[in-house]
Amino acid sequence: MTKTSLGIVTTQFFTCFGHPEFLELKSGQKLGPITIAYETYGELNAQKSNAVLICHALTGDAHAAGYHKGDDKPGWWDMMIGPGKAFDTEKYFVICANVLGGCKGTTGPSSINPETGKPYGLSFPVITIKDMVLVQQKLVAHLGITKLLNVAGGSMGGLQVMKWAVLFPKMVHSATIIATNYRHNAQQIALHEVGRQAIMSDPDWNGGDYYGKAAPKQGLALARMIGHITYMSEKSMDEKFGRKLIDKEKLGYDFSADFQVQNYLRYRGDSFVDRFDANSYLYITKAVDYFDLEEEAGNLKSALQDVRSKFLVISFSSDWLYPAHQLETFIQALKASDQDVTNVVIDSDYGHDAFLIEQKNQTHVVSHYLKRMAKEVNL
Amino acid sequence: MTKTSLGIVTTQFFTCFGHPEFLELKSGQKLGPITIAYETYGELNAQKSNAVLICHALTGDAHAAGYHKGDDKPGWWDMMIGPGKAFDTEKYFVICANVLGGCKGTTGPSSINPETGKPYGLSFPVITIKDMVLVQQKLVAHLGITKLLNVAGGSMGGLQVMKWAVLFPKMVHSATIIATNYRHNAQQIALHEVGRQAIMSDPDWNGGDYYGKAAPKQGLALARMIGHITYMSEKSMDEKFGRKLIDKEKLGYDFSADFQVQNYLRYRGDSFVDRFDANSYLYITKAVDYFDLEEEAGNLKSALQDVRSKFLVISFSSDWLYPAHQLETFIQALKASDQDVTNVVIDSDYGHDAFLIEQKNQTHVVSHYLKRMAKEVNL
Repeated sequence: MTKTSLGIVTTQFFTCFGHPEFLELKSGQKLGPITIAYETYGELNAQKSNAVLICHALTGDAHAAGYHKGDDKPGWWDMMIGPGKAFDTEKYFVICANVLGGCKGTTGPSSINPETGKPYGLSFPVITIKDMVLVQQKLVAHLGITKLLNVAGGSMGGLQVMKWAVLFPKMVHSATIIATNYRHNAQQIALHEVGRQAIMSDPDWNGGDYYGKAAPKQGLALARMIGHITYMSEKSMDEKFGRKLIDKEKLGYDFSADFQVQNYLRYRGDSFVDRFDANSYLYITKAVDYFDLEEEAGNLKSALQDVRSKFLVISFSSDWLYPAHQLETFIQALKASDQDVTNVVIDSDYGHDAFLIEQKNQTHVVSHYLKRMAKEVNL
Repeated sequence: MTKTSLGIVTTQFFTCFGHPEFLELKSGQKLGPITIAYETYGELNAQKSNAVLICHALTGDAHAAGYHKGDDKPGWWDMMIGPGKAFDTEKYFVICANVLGGCKGTTGPSSINPETGKPYGLSFPVITIKDMVLVQQKLVAHLGITKLLNVAGGSMGGLQVMKWAVLFPKMVHSATIIATNYRHNAQQIALHEVGRQAIMSDPDWNGGDYYGKAAPKQGLALARMIGHITYMSEKSMDEKFGRKLIDKEKLGYDFSADFQVQNYLRYRGDSFVDRFDANSYLYITKAVDYFDLEEEAGNLKSALQDVRSKFLVISFSSDWLYPAHQLETFIQALKASDQDVTNVVIDSDYGHDAFLIEQKNQTHVVSHYLKRMAKEVNL
């Protein structure tokens, strides 16, 4: 643990949308009560003007930074959040909440349905990125914050950031959108679809009703393996693994693993099933696939017409899952309506995972941007 | 059926490597007898100097062109093979054989093991691209051909072409290598590995012993779905499907398919299991993963030192599975040893599938190249 670490942190819980004020979902269904798991780092100032909301990616959680007691590894974006880091907890009050539909403390398909006393399973309603943001907004309001200095997130986190800027224009001073797309396209949907099919074709999935029984581990591991390939780049995989063999002098001529990359994928798949719920994977990927910023408004210009946030948009050169050119349309739409937008493409070999790895360049870009935003609100 | 079609064609069979002259595989194991399914189009000339061997890709077969009686669809490369086409059957004698390990007539894991009277299943030995080529060579010799005017293939077909040029330098006047790599790299192995894991984690796979019982359809369909995503490009998927919905006005908010791309993948997966054997998928992907032209020789220069063929190398601009830059190393190695190499990168949005779709540009390049080669042998 370095001196720049936050040290020990704990997850907190907040419940909202209880009877009769259920959350009205985009689907038209109602859901409640909803418990939100969240963490905060740093101190909220007296003016409540230094709050930053971090939105996590597909399989992330509220534990973005610092260490949980007894853990060896810090939160998933510890390289970016802490004293002296990009999201400097000596200046900013940083919040991160597990998304609706998740499995790390926030209400999701593995939560107990109070009406039945059993886990929701597939009776949990299909949720959207908008629904996730509506829940986060309740938390932010609960913390007494009326305007966030910045809302930031990579990948699925970036979708939430966009939705924040659209839904609550007065609450978002600035938005940091990293490695994502303004609409999930056919290839991105297809990749999610294969993961979902892998889960749903695992006999242990059992129509989503597997809690207390064997979980659909093989299906979920497969989904994760596919994900991992898309998170890396051709180059980063070749540099990390190449054709290196596993503890053997030569090829095995059987169907056990020969190459290190095979063992890596199997390991990544197997370790994922211990920490993630298969139904949450279904619900969250579905929410991402449903995301299309221009869909409701008809076009991007209309979708963005009420937006008042300033934007920092970051992409990575080797990200083939969410390549930089996809966000270009979004950036052009912002510029066309005279929005304040800063666009940076960071040169990196790490593919989509770069937002979790490229500390130096990302810190440089984000910390300078946040300083400018802080100055604007007299922080 | 256009007038440029070959019309009705039939598959033929040839058996070799019978007792005691078993095929000695790269693994050290022995295999035989081996039946080869093949088709030929056009006429072999008196000098036997006009023969072209076509090598098929992962899930291809011997039926490269023309129509099987009663079929609506022609062979997999009919756009390239026929009278007046790139591989002009009025000039050339074109041969295509199902690969060793396949399931379309050539001996593979679904074939009957003569020693047991039962299908080989996983008792079939792990084979390599080299082994496939050794079997093809027996067929070519059986047809009385001592030198092939051209050996051509895309994707896995291209690997066989490379191996032909290395193993039988005097038998290959020229080689056409399309959309492939000279060594299967980490990302390519990883994508195959997920497909294999999908098959092997299907309970119906049953350790490869499923013949006469339920086949591992769901696992094989998943493997095919992953494959299909990698064969298309981001752009071709977006243009073909975008976010178009399936016969519905709005999103379904359930786990049935919403988007056309989902149905397409499911359809492609399901139709594949009716025509392909899951064990063949395991064996053939393994053979591809094992392919590394420089591995045995230590480096590409040594690997290519005995090669006497001329080379036509074709890549496609949007192929992200086998991008053009990967073959650049191979091309440079050929040039460094003063080999005659023609390199063409065809601009296409169709991704890896372009070698099965881009008729016009590919025909232009191949037909001109073959005319030059034909002139060289006084054809």
